[in-house]
Amino acid sequence: MSTEVQDVADWWATSVSRIEPGIIELRGHPVQELLGNSSLTDAIWLMLRGELPTRRHAELLDAALVASVDHGPHAPSIAIARMSATCGIGLNNAIANGVNVMGDVHGGAGQQCLELYTEIRGLAAQGADLAEATRVTVGRWRARSKYLPGFGHRFHPRDPRRDPLVNLVERAVADGVVAGDFLAAGLAVEAEIAPVPMNIDGATAIIYGELGFPPPLARGLFVLGRSVGILAHAWEETEGGRRIKGPIPPGITPTYRPSEP
Amino acid sequence: MSTEVQDVADWWATSVSRIEPGIIELRGHPVQELLGNSSLTDAIWLMLRGELPTRRHAELLDAALVASVDHGPHAPSIAIARMSATCGIGLNNAIANGVNVMGDVHGGAGQQCLELYTEIRGLAAQGADLAEATRVTVGRWRARSKYLPGFGHRFHPRDPRRDPLVNLVERAVADGVVAGDFLAAGLAVEAEIAPVPMNIDGATAIIYGELGFPPPLARGLFVLGRSVGILAHAWEETEGGRRIKGPIPPGITPTYRPSEP
Amino acid sequence: MSTEVQDVADWWATSVSRIEPGIIELRGHPVQELLGNSSLTDAIWLMLRGELPTRRHAELLDAALVASVDHGPHAPSIAIARMSATCGIGLNNAIANGVNVMGDVHGGAGQQCLELYTEIRGLAAQGADLAEATRVTVGRWRARSKYLPGFGHRFHPRDPRRDPLVNLVERAVADGVVAGDFLAAGLAVEAEIAPVPMNIDGATAIIYGELGFPPPLARGLFVLGRSVGILAHAWEETEGGRRIKGPIPPGITPTYRPSEP
Amino acid sequence: MSTEVQDVADWWATSVSRIEPGIIELRGHPVQELLGNSSLTDAIWLMLRGELPTRRHAELLDAALVASVDHGPHAPSIAIARMSATCGIGLNNAIANGVNVMGDVHGGAGQQCLELYTEIRGLAAQGADLAEATRVTVGRWRARSKYLPGFGHRFHPRDPRRDPLVNLVERAVADGVVAGDFLAAGLAVEAEIAPVPMNIDGATAIIYGELGFPPPLARGLFVLGRSVGILAHAWEETEGGRRIKGPIPPGITPTYRPSEP
Repeated sequence: MSTEVQDVADWWATSVSRIEPGIIELRGHPVQELLGNSSLTDAIWLMLRGELPTRRHAELLDAALVASVDHGPHAPSIAIARMSATCGIGLNNAIANGVNVMGDVHGGAGQQCLELYTEIRGLAAQGADLAEATRVTVGRWRARSKYLPGFGHRFHPRDPRRDPLVNLVERAVADGVVAGDFLAAGLAVEAEIAPVPMNIDGATAIIYGELGFPPPLARGLFVLGRSVGILAHAWEETEGGRRIKGPIPPGITPTYRPSEP
Repeated sequence: MSTEVQDVADWWATSVSRIEPGIIELRGHPVQELLGNSSLTDAIWLMLRGELPTRRHAELLDAALVASVDHGPHAPSIAIARMSATCGIGLNNAIANGVNVMGDVHGGAGQQCLELYTEIRGLAAQGADLAEATRVTVGRWRARSKYLPGFGHRFHPRDPRRDPLVNLVERAVADGVVAGDFLAAGLAVEAEIAPVPMNIDGATAIIYGELGFPPPLARGLFVLGRSVGILAHAWEETEGGRRIKGPIPPGITPTYRPSEP
Repeated sequence: MSTEVQDVADWWATSVSRIEPGIIELRGHPVQELLGNSSLTDAIWLMLRGELPTRRHAELLDAALVASVDHGPHAPSIAIARMSATCGIGLNNAIANGVNVMGDVHGGAGQQCLELYTEIRGLAAQGADLAEATRVTVGRWRARSKYLPGFGHRFHPRDPRRDPLVNLVERAVADGVVAGDFLAAGLAVEAEIAPVPMNIDGATAIIYGELGFPPPLARGLFVLGRSVGILAHAWEETEGGRRIKGPIPPGITPTYRPSEP
Repeated sequence: MSTEVQDVADWWATSVSRIEPGIIELRGHPVQELLGNSSLTDAIWLMLRGELPTRRHAELLDAALVASVDHGPHAPSIAIARMSATCGIGLNNAIANGVNVMGDVHGGAGQQCLELYTEIRGLAAQGADLAEATRVTVGRWRARSKYLPGFGHRFHPRDPRRDPLVNLVERAVADGVVAGDFLAAGLAVEAEIAPVPMNIDGATAIIYGELGFPPPLARGLFVLGRSVGILAHAWEETEGGRRIKGPIPPGITPTYRPSEP
């Protein structure tokens, strides 16, 4: 093969998978060895981490993913997918639209919260007391924005996903499955800003941190979980058969407000 | 609540989930009961079917999903996600772009193949011999298009995912987990067009059919599986740090062909 | 250059533009000759047709594009872009979501209507009377679907864009700018199904047909026009500063309907 | 109408357009008055600014938009749209994918450059000499990133779009059409970092600034212009009929690099 063609092959080189005629390897594992032996969650871990997870690690990841699946048609990611499904596009296109809105504000809180915990842990690693490191870090974040990612919820007084997720991590720490540093950071933030409780993003960020995922993958994993709810809602709307569904029922005309002079 | 507001609530009514302050139910299951007890695959089944799967059903679904995870950067869904990740957009936006191209040609073969099997089974249910029903149906499909979905592969002489998936279904049929009608249809097609072998779409369509999913969800489920590979590739590209990645390395200029006169 | 690298360059060869160091040519026109001399509409025509339009042709194209710009936040393409803009993604991502839903049902009527007109003209070209060709063709389409693309409107008793667009084409026909065959087909359909009037899609399909665009570009051009409204609405929502805008105001909870037994 | 329904209508209120049965107004202009009288570029201005542009303002806007139309299949926005068009999705979905990647790195330089100019002008408005304000501001930006938006080009030694765009603005300043403050800022940056020349983003940012558009709309307008090239390329690929187009021709297998130990 000439040098130039080697350049072209290098341009698309990857260590994620190896595809050759008759061969499909995912992170070095022949796909035929995975089929029947590995769950989808195992495959997620394998593809992102390069090796298969332990059962206990996979269980924690499952919990974080299941917690993210749905939050009903008030969530733009769900509403948009449902409306999209009525416009004559494919189910995959409707899902894409839902995924596309999981941005910094709607889908990024888990990532941001993991950054928050990481910053607290960094400060604590320099010798500060955890409560003090938390107080300082939370102060910095609040000076930048009134929203502290991972805490409080505009809808739930107490997010019903918080307790079971935190309990699972506590058990995993007790069993030596994970170290507990991110759990400590999360609880320290909750104590610092009491009585505002942790929400799903604060709890899943603990799990992703304990499992060793970098912050951007907290968002990536949230996308995988929420895609399940997006699909279920888009499919329900497809079966309903409505066409060109607007955000509100026909007959309610938005008020026109002329531009200010 | 007035009648008009009831109309607005009805416009967004759903049986997928129930979200009220402090309450999140997925298909009637409080989320806190699922966390720690249900895998992501269980949640996929629950959200699409309304109830939790048996362990054996979940295993078959897992196999179909894991088989779909990746096919390397030659696949447009993967290449596009990688290129997108270098353009300064969020990881969710890069995933959305990959999902968005899983259309009739790139991601629809499983759905189409399940329609093919369903048509064969319909004909056989009217009293035709299975081989005859298959011969007639395959003939109809081939008259419409030279591509028979689910069979043959432009890259693999024999798709390495075929055998393990078919073997899993055979075992499930032997154990009475599924009925085997879609397996029979798939094998009948393979016999009819021998020596062209079944590919991943033909094999996963068997699984989705045996499990009772309607054809459009074969595509929806393929999207969920492939999203894992899309995320892994987009993330690898993000970590690589390249900016504005074109399809081929710099220095290879596409030939300009002036318009025909 | 080796043969293999030539293959790579050919893979991406195009007659749309020529880009070399210091050179940008659009359909053979150096970009510097276009700047200051050509409007955006001229550039649209050039890129799709390979040459610059006459002034009268550009005026007709402008009218069709301007007619498509907006239909308010009841339209899913607009509502989705507005909701997307509140989720912490880029303005381009919000526009993409609006464009993505302009599918067969929400954005494809112009394309379908141009196919309808083309079918009528084909039948008339075989010697049938135009009214008869229209009657037969409309009958065929109605047998397939209760929706006849380009006619009737679920909101406007008479679409306010119909008359000015038809008048412009009539003037262009009178001046010999276009031939009038598609205008005749459109009016014949309107007569056939009276009193249901032509809508924007029926009128713009006449323009695109008279100008020589193939049906799929009727959708492509609709996308370009509607993108303007999508941008304006997404921008207004961005300036409003709302976060995670759902389809209906907080406090109106969608009814939960449990699955059927 | 009850209070609650008023809330619902308010939730979707807009000053962009007014849509009622038989009525379509864009920024207070009945659409029938625009058709035949206004170009697409006029409509862009109207929708974003609330009033119609003068002819000279529209000409400047046209030049900036035309300059943005295309940069060939090496640009990810173009390559992605072409690949998408081969996957069995709609033309609108392929366009959406191209638009979706016009993020901070691939499509955001115009916006960022307008922010740069605005910052320079702010410093100069406080009494600093323009050259000094430029030196200080450029220094600040370069301390944050090695990329200065709007200047230099990885492909063109001198961007062929720079001169004609700058010349148009110079003429508009001479004729009193625009004030010239952003032109002065742009030229001051170019002098400060000589011999690196201004590129398309630096030149269009001057135009958008002179015309009074806020920085985020520099990206929004770039999207509108580039959508034209995206459509033309996606359409060329569609007509070519290729299926599932990967980034490089078949037969060039990407190198697999196993994960580091």
